[in-house]
Amino acid sequence: MNKLQNETPMRPLVVRQTVSWGHCDPAGIIYTPRVLDYAIETLEAWNREFLGVSWIRLNKEMSLGFPTVRSELDFFRPPAVDHVIDLGLEVLEVGRSSLTTLITGRDNGGVDYFRVKLVSCLISVPDYTPQEIPDDFRNKIHAYQSACQETLCK
Amino acid sequence: MNKLQNETPMRPLVVRQTVSWGHCDPAGIIYTPRVLDYAIETLEAWNREFLGVSWIRLNKEMSLGFPTVRSELDFFRPPAVDHVIDLGLEVLEVGRSSLTTLITGRDNGGVDYFRVKLVSCLISVPDYTPQEIPDDFRNKIHAYQSACQETLCK
Amino acid sequence: MNKLQNETPMRPLVVRQTVSWGHCDPAGIIYTPRVLDYAIETLEAWNREFLGVSWIRLNKEMSLGFPTVRSELDFFRPPAVDHVIDLGLEVLEVGRSSLTTLITGRDNGGVDYFRVKLVSCLISVPDYTPQEIPDDFRNKIHAYQSACQETLCK
Amino acid sequence: MNKLQNETPMRPLVVRQTVSWGHCDPAGIIYTPRVLDYAIETLEAWNREFLGVSWIRLNKEMSLGFPTVRSELDFFRPPAVDHVIDLGLEVLEVGRSSLTTLITGRDNGGVDYFRVKLVSCLISVPDYTPQEIPDDFRNKIHAYQSACQETLCK
Repeated sequence: MNKLQNETPMRPLVVRQTVSWGHCDPAGIIYTPRVLDYAIETLEAWNREFLGVSWIRLNKEMSLGFPTVRSELDFFRPPAVDHVIDLGLEVLEVGRSSLTTLITGRDNGGVDYFRVKLVSCLISVPDYTPQEIPDDFRNKIHAYQSACQETLCK
Repeated sequence: MNKLQNETPMRPLVVRQTVSWGHCDPAGIIYTPRVLDYAIETLEAWNREFLGVSWIRLNKEMSLGFPTVRSELDFFRPPAVDHVIDLGLEVLEVGRSSLTTLITGRDNGGVDYFRVKLVSCLISVPDYTPQEIPDDFRNKIHAYQSACQETLCK
Repeated sequence: MNKLQNETPMRPLVVRQTVSWGHCDPAGIIYTPRVLDYAIETLEAWNREFLGVSWIRLNKEMSLGFPTVRSELDFFRPPAVDHVIDLGLEVLEVGRSSLTTLITGRDNGGVDYFRVKLVSCLISVPDYTPQEIPDDFRNKIHAYQSACQETLCK
Repeated sequence: MNKLQNETPMRPLVVRQTVSWGHCDPAGIIYTPRVLDYAIETLEAWNREFLGVSWIRLNKEMSLGFPTVRSELDFFRPPAVDHVIDLGLEVLEVGRSSLTTLITGRDNGGVDYFRVKLVSCLISVPDYTPQEIPDDFRNKIHAYQSACQETLCK
């Protein structure tokens, strides 16, 4: 118990983005593909911080890749220049080779702007054959899921 | 009948993209958000050529917008540097304010690389209220759908 | 004097960028135009924080723009995936309508990766006529220059 | 002589870009870094077509790279949405390892919008040591220069 109190509890990942001038289109709102970019950069940060391996190390040192094979984007309201959006990542599902995550873009008043569902598939490179997610990764993913649930309960 | 024969038949839109060096990531394949960019540029070209009004004129002259409110991307195989991809656009559905299109990325051997479904919603600017798609647009959309079906039948 | 000691001293702006997977090309290093993007986002943040007005407010509320009319980029070594680069902004020159800034990309070991010189020109919109930089902006620019010099002297 | 008449004369490279909605910022004009992207894609196409080797083959098959080590951009007027810009490439200088090109963006009325000077350096990968430009490349570059001069003379 003491030990737990001394440890920093695992927190769900939140990546903050300030919507920049160059991310927006002539209507003054974010250009749609940029939101997918935000979401994938969030997933990339999550891999680095929570799986403990960045995509470049996964590729170069482990001959693996974790490409996004399916994405779904839903917009509720359009982010505009200078908006500050927090992207939170939640794990929805872990399959044999696939990982499904949900990234929600929210302002600091708790208003949701968009939601992106990403399905990633662990593959070997360069042959692109699906690989079983190793136990080490699987354990880290489950630990993250638990941490997220605890946070949501509070 | 003679008249029809003299007219250039309407052809489904195909936008050709050569996957460039800067569109690809360190794994040598296309960076996912770029595919959404390709799809949206295809939809933009379709608006210009088949609805007869570009997005900037829609915005500035008609106080309308046609933003993408939902997107779905599915990858079958990853496009890599120097691949030439033809993006074909098909209309799936026309609602009161919404238009659903399907954009397929295919190489010249007929192999499919990805498929992107885009749901656009006609809105007024700057208040973002959904607007009924005017008959003029609706007729042009139906003409395009018919042209696509004929092409597919041949 | 007491007052000065109580005030937070003005610090030169530093924007931190982690080079992401999608910012890099198949050679694993940053795709050149992305560095210009980093530099311009740094200038944008500087406008927001030190001139006290973001580009969107400049455009919509003051009918002004501050576009980059000339850029020079020099690379010393290529940033690669996961590198953390601090972009520092220095004001080189203030003319009647123009502002010349130098943005240096450096890692936390003090190694320089690139340098970008940007010449911006204050214009009125929508006619794009050069405008004299108002005294209010000019004073803030000079204050920033002084703050940078003091920091460099220490 | 007969042989020459039968051959297709070499023509300076021109890459056409339609300025898209997503390339423009909330002021309705092109976002500056996008112009560097246009220029570098033009240089990439030139490498593929006139040096006869694409950047990915240069990297993977020849263990070489041709990164842009210096760029200069000058804007004369801002391209806006739907503008059609032709990017023409001219070789300015060939050094031991470096190649200096000038890319001009012009509309079909002959009006210049921007000019980008790119200095590329031939290097070996992965060690990034400058390499002497091989004679094969050098000859092709000189042939291109001659072709451009003839075209300009006419």
